[in-house]
Amino acid sequence: MLQSKLFCKTQKEKSADSSSVSHDLLVRAGFVDQLMAGVYTYMPLGFKVLQKVECIIREEMEKAGGQEILMPVLHPKENWEKTGRWDSLDILFKVKGGGEKEYALGPTHEEVVSPLAKKFVLSYKDLPFSVFQIQTKFRDELRAKSGILRTREFLMKDFYSFHSDQSDLDKFYDKMAKVYANIFKRAGIGKQTYQTLASGGSFSKYSDEFQTVTEAGEDIIYVCSKCKIAINREIKEENQFCPKCKNSEFETKKSVEVGNIFKLGTKYSAPFDLKFRDKDGIEKPVLMGCYGIGLGRVLGAVVEISHDEKGIIWPAEIAPFSAHLIQIENTPKVLKTAQKLYTDLQKENIEILYDERQDKTAGEKFADADLMGIPYRIVVSERTLKQDSVELKERSKSSAKLVKIKQLSKILK
Amino acid sequence: MLQSKLFCKTQKEKSADSSSVSHDLLVRAGFVDQLMAGVYTYMPLGFKVLQKVECIIREEMEKAGGQEILMPVLHPKENWEKTGRWDSLDILFKVKGGGEKEYALGPTHEEVVSPLAKKFVLSYKDLPFSVFQIQTKFRDELRAKSGILRTREFLMKDFYSFHSDQSDLDKFYDKMAKVYANIFKRAGIGKQTYQTLASGGSFSKYSDEFQTVTEAGEDIIYVCSKCKIAINREIKEENQFCPKCKNSEFETKKSVEVGNIFKLGTKYSAPFDLKFRDKDGIEKPVLMGCYGIGLGRVLGAVVEISHDEKGIIWPAEIAPFSAHLIQIENTPKVLKTAQKLYTDLQKENIEILYDERQDKTAGEKFADADLMGIPYRIVVSERTLKQDSVELKERSKSSAKLVKIKQLSKILK
Repeated sequence: MLQSKLFCKTQKEKSADSSSVSHDLLVRAGFVDQLMAGVYTYMPLGFKVLQKVECIIREEMEKAGGQEILMPVLHPKENWEKTGRWDSLDILFKVKGGGEKEYALGPTHEEVVSPLAKKFVLSYKDLPFSVFQIQTKFRDELRAKSGILRTREFLMKDFYSFHSDQSDLDKFYDKMAKVYANIFKRAGIGKQTYQTLASGGSFSKYSDEFQTVTEAGEDIIYVCSKCKIAINREIKEENQFCPKCKNSEFETKKSVEVGNIFKLGTKYSAPFDLKFRDKDGIEKPVLMGCYGIGLGRVLGAVVEISHDEKGIIWPAEIAPFSAHLIQIENTPKVLKTAQKLYTDLQKENIEILYDERQDKTAGEKFADADLMGIPYRIVVSERTLKQDSVELKERSKSSAKLVKIKQLSKILK
Repeated sequence: MLQSKLFCKTQKEKSADSSSVSHDLLVRAGFVDQLMAGVYTYMPLGFKVLQKVECIIREEMEKAGGQEILMPVLHPKENWEKTGRWDSLDILFKVKGGGEKEYALGPTHEEVVSPLAKKFVLSYKDLPFSVFQIQTKFRDELRAKSGILRTREFLMKDFYSFHSDQSDLDKFYDKMAKVYANIFKRAGIGKQTYQTLASGGSFSKYSDEFQTVTEAGEDIIYVCSKCKIAINREIKEENQFCPKCKNSEFETKKSVEVGNIFKLGTKYSAPFDLKFRDKDGIEKPVLMGCYGIGLGRVLGAVVEISHDEKGIIWPAEIAPFSAHLIQIENTPKVLKTAQKLYTDLQKENIEILYDERQDKTAGEKFADADLMGIPYRIVVSERTLKQDSVELKERSKSSAKLVKIKQLSKILK
C-alpha cells in the first residue's frame, strides 16, 4: 500500500489523556482512534493487525475442533433472568426497545449458547462438540481506562465446549490450555504470558487466567519463586503457600488478563435444562467449558511489551505489513528502483507499505517507520544503489546492513 | 467436514412461524437459528456462506480503493444530536449506561465516520479517499419479519467516500454502481437485481437502491416496459412517466432491497464541520457518498431466488461447500473409497462435506443433501465402484451421471 494514501496520519506529540503506553503509541501511529472513553475505531493499520490476530485464533480454534458460528449481540431478558445474571451482573448493558421489550447487550454468551445447544443435543452420540465465535462484546465498565486494555466494547473470541462426563471435560480443558499457550506464543507474548490459577466459582476448584506481565496491567499475579507457577490475587489471599509446591515465596508482577478458561460444569446447562441421554437411555446433564480471548487486549499487551522510545515493534506474525519500503532523495533512479521493488515484492506475496511521499524528509520518514513498527525497513537511496543494494534494518535491531537487491526477497520471506 | 460432527441437524417439518421461504429453508437446513423475532444466530453452515459473501464484498471494496476499518457499535448521543437524528430516527436503539451516559447503537455510521475524517483531512491532497467496514448494525424494527430479510441486528458493509468536488463524487458513484452490479452477479442474484432509482433526499435528485425481485420482498419496484430501468414506489408516485424514456407503462414487481448508494453531498460534512483547503488555500466542505450492502439480505435473497421444493440451491461462489460426498451401502470397499476421496479432494483444496453417517438410509441422506443445497453431490456405492466411478449430480440439474474417480477433481475445480 502507498503510504500517501493511508487514511490516518502519525502524530508527533503524546496525547494529554494517554493512559498507557499502548494507547499513546497506537493512537499516535494511527492504528486506533478513540471515539469516547472505552470505545475505539480500528483504523486501517490497526484493523490489519486485528485481522492477523483473528487469523491465528481462528486457525487454532479450528484445529481444536471448534465450529465457527455467529451469535447475536441482542439477548432476550428472559435468558439472563433464568441464570440470575440480569440483576447480579453490574456491567450488563440493558436496552429497552419498542413495545417495551428489554434486551441485554451480550458481555458473554452462555445465556445464548446453552439453549442453542439444547435444540441439537439429544444423545451421547452428539457429544463432545464445541463452537466458537469472534464477536463484539459489551461491558458497562464504570471506569474504562488503560486505553484499549479495558474498553466498553471489544472483540472477543468465545469458545464453548460440551461434554458427557467430567473426565472428557478435564481432558479437553487441558488441551485448550496448551492451545492458548501456542496462540500467545504466535502473537509474540508467549514468554510474558502466565497461565495463572484463579478461583473456579462453584463447580471446580480452579479456573485459569492467562496473564501477560506488563507495568500497564491492572491485575497482580504471584509467581512462585520455586516452581514458577502463577496464581492470581484471590488465590493468593486464600493460600499462604504455593498450591503446587507449598513454597511460601512469591514474586509479585503487574499484569493484564488476555484470556481465561473455565470449567463451567452444569452452571449453565442446569438452568437451561441442557441434558443428553447416555448409552443406557438415562438423562444426564451436559457439562460445559468456556474459553475466552480478548483480541484488543492481546493487541494492547503486545504493544506494552514490544516497543522502545521511538515506537512500536510488531512481532512478525501480527505486523500490519512485513516491510516498510522508503525512498530517500527523489532522483529518477531512486524513484524507478523503489517503484519496481514495490511491485516485485508484492508479486512474491510480501506485504509492503511503500513510503513514496516526496514532501517528507528522510528523518520524518524514519521517525514514522519507527513509530509504526513494521518488522523490516528497506531504504533505497543513491548511495545504496551504487552497490546495487538497499539498506535493510530490522525494527528490533539497532544496526542496518546493505543487501543486494537480488537477495532481498529471499531474506524477507 | 464430517457431517456427523456438524453442530446442527436438519428438520423435516416446516416451522409453524416460518414467514418466508428463505427463513423456512435456512432454519430447516441448519444454516441459521432464530433466537427471537428479528435476531438470528448463524450456525456453522450459515456462517460459511456469510464468510463467502463477506469475501466477495471485501475483494470488490478493496478493488474500488476502500480501506477497511472497524468503527464501534456504541455511539455518543452528542453526535446523533448534532445531525438531529437522535430524535428523528424512530428505529434508533438507545442505551443508558452507568453515570447516565447515553449511547446510540449504530444503525449506520455517518455520525462516526464524518468526525473521524475531520481528524485526518486537511487539504485537497488528502482527497479523494474511502473507507469501509463489515460490521453489525442495529435497527429497532417494530415488526421484524420475513425471516432474515428484515432483522433488528444485521451484518452490513458500509462504505464512505470523500471528495473535493461534485464531478469527482459523481464519477466515483457511477463506478460504485458497477462494482455493486458485479457483487450481486458473483453472489448469484445478478439477473434478478435491479439498480432502482430512488429519492435522493436533500442533496441530489436521486439515489439508487439495488432491489432483488422476489415474491418475499416487502418493496415494490416499477420496471419501465420500454427502456427497462427500474424506479421505486416513491419515484413512481411522483412521476407518471419513466424518468428516462418518458414511457408510461411499467411492470410491477415485488422486491427486497439488498443494497443502496447515496450521494450525501454535505449533509453530514456540514454538521461536523468537515472541510478541506483547496489549491488556493480556500476552505471548502468535503462531499461524501455512502454505499451499503446488507449481508443477511443477500443471503436471504439468494435462497428466495434459488431453491426448489426440496431445498436450497446455492450458487457456486457462496456455497458452504463445493461438494457433498455421500456413501451408501456401508461395505468395506465403499467406506474405504469414500474416505480416500474425502482426503484426496480436500488435498486439492476442494471443500467437501462428507456424509459418513452409517445409521441413515440413502433416502435420508439424499433429502438432507437436497435441503442443504451444496452444488455437487457425489455418491459412492457398490454399483458405481464396479465401474471405478462415482455418481455425480449437480444440485441445479435433475439427472446424474457416472464419472470415473480419476476424472472427478478436474470437474469439481
